[in-house]
Amino acid sequence: MGPEEFRAAGHELIDWIADYRVRIPQLPVQAQVGPGEVAGKLPGRAPEEAEPLSRVLDDLEGVVVPGVTQVQHPRYFGWFPSNACLSSVLGDLAASGLGALGITWQSAPALTEVEEVVVDWLRELTGLPQSWKGVIQDTASSACLVALLAARERATNFSKTRGGMQAESAPLTVYTTQHAHSSVAKAVALAGYGQDNLHLVDVDPVTYAMRPGALASALEADLAAGCRPAAVVATVGTTGTTAVDPVAQIVPLAREYGMWVHVDAAMAGSALLLPEMRWLADGVEGADSLAWNPHKWLGTVLDCSLLYVADPGHLIRVMSTSPSYLRSAVDGEVTQYKDWGIPLGRRFRALKLWFHLRLDGVEAIRARLRRDLDNARWLADRVSSASGWRVLAPVSLQTVVLRHEPAGLDADGLDAHTLAWVDTVNASGAALVTPSLLDGRWSVRVSIGAERTERSDVEELWRLLQQAAAEAG
Amino acid sequence: MGPEEFRAAGHELIDWIADYRVRIPQLPVQAQVGPGEVAGKLPGRAPEEAEPLSRVLDDLEGVVVPGVTQVQHPRYFGWFPSNACLSSVLGDLAASGLGALGITWQSAPALTEVEEVVVDWLRELTGLPQSWKGVIQDTASSACLVALLAARERATNFSKTRGGMQAESAPLTVYTTQHAHSSVAKAVALAGYGQDNLHLVDVDPVTYAMRPGALASALEADLAAGCRPAAVVATVGTTGTTAVDPVAQIVPLAREYGMWVHVDAAMAGSALLLPEMRWLADGVEGADSLAWNPHKWLGTVLDCSLLYVADPGHLIRVMSTSPSYLRSAVDGEVTQYKDWGIPLGRRFRALKLWFHLRLDGVEAIRARLRRDLDNARWLADRVSSASGWRVLAPVSLQTVVLRHEPAGLDADGLDAHTLAWVDTVNASGAALVTPSLLDGRWSVRVSIGAERTERSDVEELWRLLQQAAAEAG
Repeated sequence: MGPEEFRAAGHELIDWIADYRVRIPQLPVQAQVGPGEVAGKLPGRAPEEAEPLSRVLDDLEGVVVPGVTQVQHPRYFGWFPSNACLSSVLGDLAASGLGALGITWQSAPALTEVEEVVVDWLRELTGLPQSWKGVIQDTASSACLVALLAARERATNFSKTRGGMQAESAPLTVYTTQHAHSSVAKAVALAGYGQDNLHLVDVDPVTYAMRPGALASALEADLAAGCRPAAVVATVGTTGTTAVDPVAQIVPLAREYGMWVHVDAAMAGSALLLPEMRWLADGVEGADSLAWNPHKWLGTVLDCSLLYVADPGHLIRVMSTSPSYLRSAVDGEVTQYKDWGIPLGRRFRALKLWFHLRLDGVEAIRARLRRDLDNARWLADRVSSASGWRVLAPVSLQTVVLRHEPAGLDADGLDAHTLAWVDTVNASGAALVTPSLLDGRWSVRVSIGAERTERSDVEELWRLLQQAAAEAG
Repeated sequence: MGPEEFRAAGHELIDWIADYRVRIPQLPVQAQVGPGEVAGKLPGRAPEEAEPLSRVLDDLEGVVVPGVTQVQHPRYFGWFPSNACLSSVLGDLAASGLGALGITWQSAPALTEVEEVVVDWLRELTGLPQSWKGVIQDTASSACLVALLAARERATNFSKTRGGMQAESAPLTVYTTQHAHSSVAKAVALAGYGQDNLHLVDVDPVTYAMRPGALASALEADLAAGCRPAAVVATVGTTGTTAVDPVAQIVPLAREYGMWVHVDAAMAGSALLLPEMRWLADGVEGADSLAWNPHKWLGTVLDCSLLYVADPGHLIRVMSTSPSYLRSAVDGEVTQYKDWGIPLGRRFRALKLWFHLRLDGVEAIRARLRRDLDNARWLADRVSSASGWRVLAPVSLQTVVLRHEPAGLDADGLDAHTLAWVDTVNASGAALVTPSLLDGRWSVRVSIGAERTERSDVEELWRLLQQAAAEAG
């Protein structure tokens, strides 16, 4: 496709996207297709001849749109917000259009330096230490793996340069809570620590936050048993209830044993743009790394996760390679982001952050975040004061975990009731919330923060929840 | 930014990209900026107030474009091709515009199923076994890490579910050649094998391909020493010279010891679309995994790497997690791509492949690949027959490795001469080639395959090379 054909097709697609965004509120939130339904509508082989754009747009419209859950919908309250702000969509388009190749600084100096600048803008906006340096990763899962690899290499004094993990006799242990994201256990497994060496530290029964005293006891017991504590992953804003592990109390304990502290603030990182929410990250200046996802609540289109580290030199030693075909005269003077993560080739992801912040402006973003926090408090108040309803965890952020608890149900009956009314809400397409286990029982997470969600949408959701629960008996 | 503002801005940006693509041939290929020059033009803080698009486009034009090496330039012959075909740019824009969230099948059934279908289209187009299943990864580096993690868990019978790598006493060994991509050594280090356990198998001095006899000897010696051979990484199309390891001879050896065979065809995978080039992957049906990058020569905009596996069930066991908030009623019936790689959240990357193949058609893509192979043979012929010039490795693909070897220079003098004339070419901005070490001496890689590179561009390059070498003395 040549530039002029692209120009015409591009205008058509931009219009399609603008129209699509306008009509999202009329679409069902949850995709209404069954397994295999989308695949069944597609041909089994790639086309030999070029097809016209109109045919592709017809399929986008007729096959793809009904096949995706509309996370940009104003009544999407599922998982966590996954906003794709249109300003950031433009930045991503600019990146694709440029088609730059990020393998070394030399291959695209601006790809590296815009990233350095924009990531530092966000460091300053979130109040992270001035000396920290950051890099864009695809997701917080990858960032957590990178952090645990860095921790492993620090604990083993670079076993990767010798016989690897097999040569290490004392088990390296990692600490987190049962409320940590599933990516922590995955990173522990992939980094070679082994699941037996992931210790789930007790949480406070009300706040669901890690208990520092329990961490201290676990560390003592493990040291006595000959283990080598390597890392703590503290979560600021857990997936289940947005619980906040007390980083300020975890850091001194970890320091005592030379452990790496990684802070997973995937969701809560956006909140740090608000000075009044900085308490979430109290003590973070003593940690070794922190990751958060602009591709969640902030709204920079997927995939865009930020990983900050206190000691970039260590990370680079863990991740670096320097084959001759990638060497250049300026190697010592520039940042080589290939040595800050797993992939070599990188997209110009910084452009979507750059466009997003510049075209929307930080003040407007902060106002939207405050709107959502306010909506969450409003909903929590309604739920708390409604008969038969309960808010199950502190509302520290924009997620409300709730349950309808009618009298006369035993625990299993309550689980069945919860799953039944949640299914009614989700299947209706009118709104989407997520069922989630808390203390072994089903609860419902209402995660507020889709870009288009206004108070009226939360009011409507509350009406839908009450109606579905009442109908479920 | 609302949909109507996006519509207007989007049209402007589409025009900007179309215009940019038209004028690329007038730009210097290699970025002409020094370290810090781009960053120095950007403000130190994010803007509080929204800025108009015009200001962002001005910076895109004035700061970003001069700051990237133009890999879409017709006289870009560096590293490997990194085409960003405009049809795929549209697909990527559609993905961003939709803003779908790929965490589970349920979160976006079409994101999963279009990926399954399109990845299978490419399996069929490249002649890979019908039973293999594929997934899109960001890069071949990540794909290689995933493969070596799968190999590690097979060799240790899932040590990740127990004490991890520390609990494994016999060293797990991995085999590749010194010509393998740097990501192999990186994956070996990150997966915890340790660099001491990566064995570089001897290559043929003419073809630079792995010698199966040398692999057999290495395996015997390591087994005698108490090692547990876990994986071989065979490269089909090495970075240095596009050498082709003999997969058909490697597979039976690996099978004998239960080793995982990963085929890194990052560059050469595109060539498999041509039936006449299928010999490159002879024997691949006996391997366990293969990765190749549509984001290279094929031209699907970064990042888009395909990983195929013979046994998806094993990969899923290595990568899976199943927290309650991600469970759904259809889990057993659908593909959960979160369990096929490291990240949980995924972009709708399949759309860029889908748009690319449909809007360009496979026949046109094949014709372009054949054009490039033909251009490489043309250049190799010219170089071979020119006095003082030498082609240093078999031209198995679209990359010609060459050197100007004037009489009377010792080895160090020759290195200095090579680096001097390469620098002249690259600094001129008229073309870009990559200096690379081969057998410990500097050579020059001419990697043909930018989408807009025609015969006339290769002719012009040959003129530039001869002129620069002559001027360098």
